[in-house]
Amino acid sequence: MAKRVLIVGAGLGGSLLALYLGRAGHKVMLVERRGDPRAKNYVGGRSINLAISARGIHALERAGLASQLLEHGIRMPGRMIHPVQGAPVFQPYSRDPSRAINSVSRSRLNLLLLNAATDDPNVEARFDLPCVDADFAKPAGIFRRADGSTEHIEADLVVATDGAYSAVRSAMQKNERVDYSQSYLSHGYKELTIPAADGGGFRIERNALHIWPRGGSMMIALPNPDGTFTCTLFWPFDGPDSFATIRTDDDVRRHFERVYPDALPHMPTLLEDFRGNPVGSMVTVRTSPWHLNGTVALLGDAAHAVVPFYGQGANASFEDCEALVDALTEFPNDQRAALDAYQTRRIRNANAIADMALANFIEMRDKTASSAFRLKKKAEHALHGLLGNAYLPLYDMVSFTTIPYAEARERAQRQQRAVVTGAVVAAGALVAGAAAAAWALA
Amino acid sequence: MAKRVLIVGAGLGGSLLALYLGRAGHKVMLVERRGDPRAKNYVGGRSINLAISARGIHALERAGLASQLLEHGIRMPGRMIHPVQGAPVFQPYSRDPSRAINSVSRSRLNLLLLNAATDDPNVEARFDLPCVDADFAKPAGIFRRADGSTEHIEADLVVATDGAYSAVRSAMQKNERVDYSQSYLSHGYKELTIPAADGGGFRIERNALHIWPRGGSMMIALPNPDGTFTCTLFWPFDGPDSFATIRTDDDVRRHFERVYPDALPHMPTLLEDFRGNPVGSMVTVRTSPWHLNGTVALLGDAAHAVVPFYGQGANASFEDCEALVDALTEFPNDQRAALDAYQTRRIRNANAIADMALANFIEMRDKTASSAFRLKKKAEHALHGLLGNAYLPLYDMVSFTTIPYAEARERAQRQQRAVVTGAVVAAGALVAGAAAAAWALA
Repeated sequence: MAKRVLIVGAGLGGSLLALYLGRAGHKVMLVERRGDPRAKNYVGGRSINLAISARGIHALERAGLASQLLEHGIRMPGRMIHPVQGAPVFQPYSRDPSRAINSVSRSRLNLLLLNAATDDPNVEARFDLPCVDADFAKPAGIFRRADGSTEHIEADLVVATDGAYSAVRSAMQKNERVDYSQSYLSHGYKELTIPAADGGGFRIERNALHIWPRGGSMMIALPNPDGTFTCTLFWPFDGPDSFATIRTDDDVRRHFERVYPDALPHMPTLLEDFRGNPVGSMVTVRTSPWHLNGTVALLGDAAHAVVPFYGQGANASFEDCEALVDALTEFPNDQRAALDAYQTRRIRNANAIADMALANFIEMRDKTASSAFRLKKKAEHALHGLLGNAYLPLYDMVSFTTIPYAEARERAQRQQRAVVTGAVVAAGALVAGAAAAAWALA
Repeated sequence: MAKRVLIVGAGLGGSLLALYLGRAGHKVMLVERRGDPRAKNYVGGRSINLAISARGIHALERAGLASQLLEHGIRMPGRMIHPVQGAPVFQPYSRDPSRAINSVSRSRLNLLLLNAATDDPNVEARFDLPCVDADFAKPAGIFRRADGSTEHIEADLVVATDGAYSAVRSAMQKNERVDYSQSYLSHGYKELTIPAADGGGFRIERNALHIWPRGGSMMIALPNPDGTFTCTLFWPFDGPDSFATIRTDDDVRRHFERVYPDALPHMPTLLEDFRGNPVGSMVTVRTSPWHLNGTVALLGDAAHAVVPFYGQGANASFEDCEALVDALTEFPNDQRAALDAYQTRRIRNANAIADMALANFIEMRDKTASSAFRLKKKAEHALHGLLGNAYLPLYDMVSFTTIPYAEARERAQRQQRAVVTGAVVAAGALVAGAAAAAWALA
């Protein structure tokens, strides 16, 4: 049955959902607080590139848009680890060199989705209309017009895709029996740039996600098609070597000379970038339920903002879109049952990727530099080679399959236990063999 | 240095804080969203009695109000456990029969505090003025007047004592790097009444907190000075024997006949009460920090709503008041340092009582009925008798001392380990002694 669906927020999740629902025959009103990026060639928000991997590609293929995106993406089949001294070391993400995550432009991806969505006659989009509240009974989204007046937009279903600071979720959590938590990292981030080389090429390896792991803090860099890299510092807000203590041009220059010496020559705009760009914070949001009354649902960052360290934020939102449209198809005449099915399928997976993203921060900044870590990754890849799909490293499952996140994590834990048991048995067999040999020789 | 202090909310915590600060020479504006209970002899909110114990009494003594309150309170030196069949059993809270928690009227306590506070010329109170937002820079509270217009009230310090659904905290949590969580119980509550006996006396034991523990749910009753008891059902919202399934008069009567047979004859208004009274929900709120910019601070339920099962909500708020006024005295010229000290001293204790209150729900509804539990309580009291202050049962520390909550919990854990170790040593000694005796006899 065709529904009137109001989607609050025309970011990545909202645009893809509009496209899916429009094509499924629903009447979609997509409302965005920012200006129209199609007109202004502008997409707001601070992060300018992101990593798309198997889950995102799966969802884009369903919309027929994957190849259009990936032709402008840059493959990153592994991490390039930059030690303080010595040459960088490449660590492949997978045993299979054809597996790569893809650095893509957030604004290009958003435009691609929004254009495709609004090409559908079932989808209407409005801009410059911030959501300020929701009516969970009608249901309706409540928006503030430029003149300060409010406008109620009613629908059969309201889906909030308005991000980590969702106005709809904020209204939802004022209802009784809505569990909610927001938890900030004690680290902030700041974006910097490595410009293209004079000839237009890349100043450092193009096909890698670069990491300068420094234990407790790090810098990363993702390539852009124009030859530039977007670098991001992840430093503590406070304490030694933090955004609070490294402030002046002199502080910054001295710190980079000491801590990121191989990057510094490639960063001619470092001091301007550092001065001009804000320090952002990173939050993990969890909430339950994901819908109220079977009328208003949350999707993407609005339901489960995650920290960026597994590169799965957009990928997870796209999975939400698939799950929601599938549930609505499955229960065409019972919207509450559809939303119940949607949240049952997604909440545990969203919690799992939230946990894994937090754990990956520790891994990236503290462990990737160690030879023990490299050995562990090699051992994982070797086991995968030996055992095939019976042993899939966690990173492979998260980035290169669509195995649900929670299942991937459980499977990794089972594999880990099996490996430990196997090692103990093997060691026991060795000892027994040695003893038998010693006995035979005696 | 005298400050202008705006206190948002004239409930228990806000009124006591106003009194403390007024007497300390600060200029206090106390603003409440409800009507003036002094004029209307009315105090809003649903719970009509509560338990005051050592911490609350300590804070009230500091204000010279403890005896005025306690002369209208009813001592509860223990729990009266009502099994489904058989006679109720009294379990003392402490080895020392002089130790009791006190059932007092919430509205009487609120009026007592508010009258005492507004008797001070430094304290001005305004009513019917709900807070809708806060300005953390100025600082100011933002209120909505009856005509719909907003009013900003500026101060040097704003303290939010506006309860579990605090508008100020809601504004605060929209700032970056404010951690926040709200977590609801899957149980709701509903209040019922046991009226006074025909002659005016108490129908069941006056000096006890009555519990009907039923494993997974329970009813409790606290005495009031007029001979009535306020009963509270704590039932699951959903599932078997829940508020969702027990709905009609017939359901209720049959359920009470089966589950609370000894209470039913004392509850002539059961069906009206059940029909008329709402089902409330219970939330645990945690947030950090407790102040923003050194200008706006949270106190009581606004900072740390707890579930009611340890009877410590009001007591903990009163401890907050003492800690805040002490910190402001300690740092008269550095408000930020004062608020830092206040939150450092209180957050871990607030988290500890939140955890203990959740644990006590399980204890009350599932364990108090068992003979093993009664034996454990007797053993604790015996150890306390034997070892004095070297062994203080947790309930004694929480309810009958002012040992900080977190310290009480840690001490109880240490004692528990020591008892286990002692038991193991004693058992070892017994075995050794028996072996020695057997050897000597052989």
